Amino acid sequence: MLPPQVRSVLEELRAERIRGASWMAKRGAEAYLILANLLEGEDLEKALLELKRELPAVNPTMASLYNLTRFIPITGDASLVISRAEEFLHLIDEAKKTIGNIGSELIEDGDTVITHSFSSAVFEVLRTARSRGVDFKVILTESAPDYEGIVLASELEKLGIEFELITDAQLGLFAGRSTLALVGADNITKDGAVINKAGTYLLALACHDNGVPFYVTAESFKLHPELRSSEVEILERPYARQGYRVRNFLFDVTPWKYIRGIITELGILVPPREI
Amino acid sequence: MLPPQVRSVLEELRAERIRGASWMAKRGAEAYLILANLLEGEDLEKALLELKRELPAVNPTMASLYNLTRFIPITGDASLVISRAEEFLHLIDEAKKTIGNIGSELIEDGDTVITHSFSSAVFEVLRTARSRGVDFKVILTESAPDYEGIVLASELEKLGIEFELITDAQLGLFAGRSTLALVGADNITKDGAVINKAGTYLLALACHDNGVPFYVTAESFKLHPELRSSEVEILERPYARQGYRVRNFLFDVTPWKYIRGIITELGILVPPREI
Repeated sequence: MLPPQVRSVLEELRAERIRGASWMAKRGAEAYLILANLLEGEDLEKALLELKRELPAVNPTMASLYNLTRFIPITGDASLVISRAEEFLHLIDEAKKTIGNIGSELIEDGDTVITHSFSSAVFEVLRTARSRGVDFKVILTESAPDYEGIVLASELEKLGIEFELITDAQLGLFAGRSTLALVGADNITKDGAVINKAGTYLLALACHDNGVPFYVTAESFKLHPELRSSEVEILERPYARQGYRVRNFLFDVTPWKYIRGIITELGILVPPREI
Repeated sequence: MLPPQVRSVLEELRAERIRGASWMAKRGAEAYLILANLLEGEDLEKALLELKRELPAVNPTMASLYNLTRFIPITGDASLVISRAEEFLHLIDEAKKTIGNIGSELIEDGDTVITHSFSSAVFEVLRTARSRGVDFKVILTESAPDYEGIVLASELEKLGIEFELITDAQLGLFAGRSTLALVGADNITKDGAVINKAGTYLLALACHDNGVPFYVTAESFKLHPELRSSEVEILERPYARQGYRVRNFLFDVTPWKYIRGIITELGILVPPREI
């Protein structure tokens, strides 16, 4: 039996609509901290087993939740759980900073960077490039129907980064006016496909057609060690407009061949030649 | 000086947000009828010259308005203007019916037809296929920010055609689940590119990547005899969300090479081999 404090974190994760996989992993790790501060011994062990089932089920396409549950041992030793959860939280922060540094090297004066949805790792890259004094511009989608693009716009505004918001359907029109594409990832499959906010695949195709390099940022805990792109189950959330049900699958699948590189904290992964 | 009755049609055309190039051409032809019923002789001639400038300027990417103004002679003979305008209106209706017949032959039992935005010619194809008893399904986008996809959904509902609405960003995800793509056109350039609602190019790319045949419906008066795709000026309408300006270019450009065929009332145009 999970304590109500942990249940409420699970509910919060299920209800979250704007923030991505890194934030989810962070809140997940915090759920472990809460759990290990409440229980110990056999009770803790049972609760850990339950969390190991329930946490990845919040979003089955999210590798970060899956990898988090593998990172924490099933044990009655509360202090061990706490130290592992804290280590995971530390890794998340460190990975993002390193990705910001590596990714910002790709942005040069005069660049126009196009993105889709709100990735905290992409934001870190843009923030780092800005703090290095690089003079660039961002094109970003409003990202219907939850409009997390508007949230990103307000963050860019605070940093004084020049930006242009577009509707999602204009991704093709604006890809050709960009010099670099940068998106986040919820999950990287075993065969190198990027699972990210629906529309990412369209941006990748338009970049490919226009010769614009398409990069993905992903902390290494987003690499799923087992899942193949053909096995991905895509989460759907209810959405309606003017009384009509509108399908609302959150993610799409971008094949390896359209990706110039995946920026991780360990370096940039590039697709093998034969693809 | 254009009479106020004609001015108000121009205003109506400028304000229209849902209906496409065929409807615009029809209202344009009706403006000529109004004009020729009010004026004659030199006054008519001067007003015709003014309309020839103003009508295409309502939407410079719309070949149908341009071709309409070339179809009507500059003359003081009101009865000639009326007969030509009526001929144009007749051609519009006939062309749509013929496109409905030709296009419906492409749809077979079990097909899933994907479309974007609301094209009256695509609707005619679907209506004709349905009246022939073909058993198929339609996937359509809501088409933000004016949501003309919702209008199409309500029309399909009336005809009992099965459909699934999606957000625009899911075009890539659903292209792979479709067997045929059908879109309208506002304009076909001299070099064969299709100018249509922004997002059409993304659908074409996703269909190409998934091996799904991508067809365009276009009455022959949408073929622009002079304009090249590189010269297209794309109309933008104001749009904002949560206080932020969002770019809202209405159209994008789909190159000839991604198009399996353009269904016109004269037959299906196919791209030359060398493309």
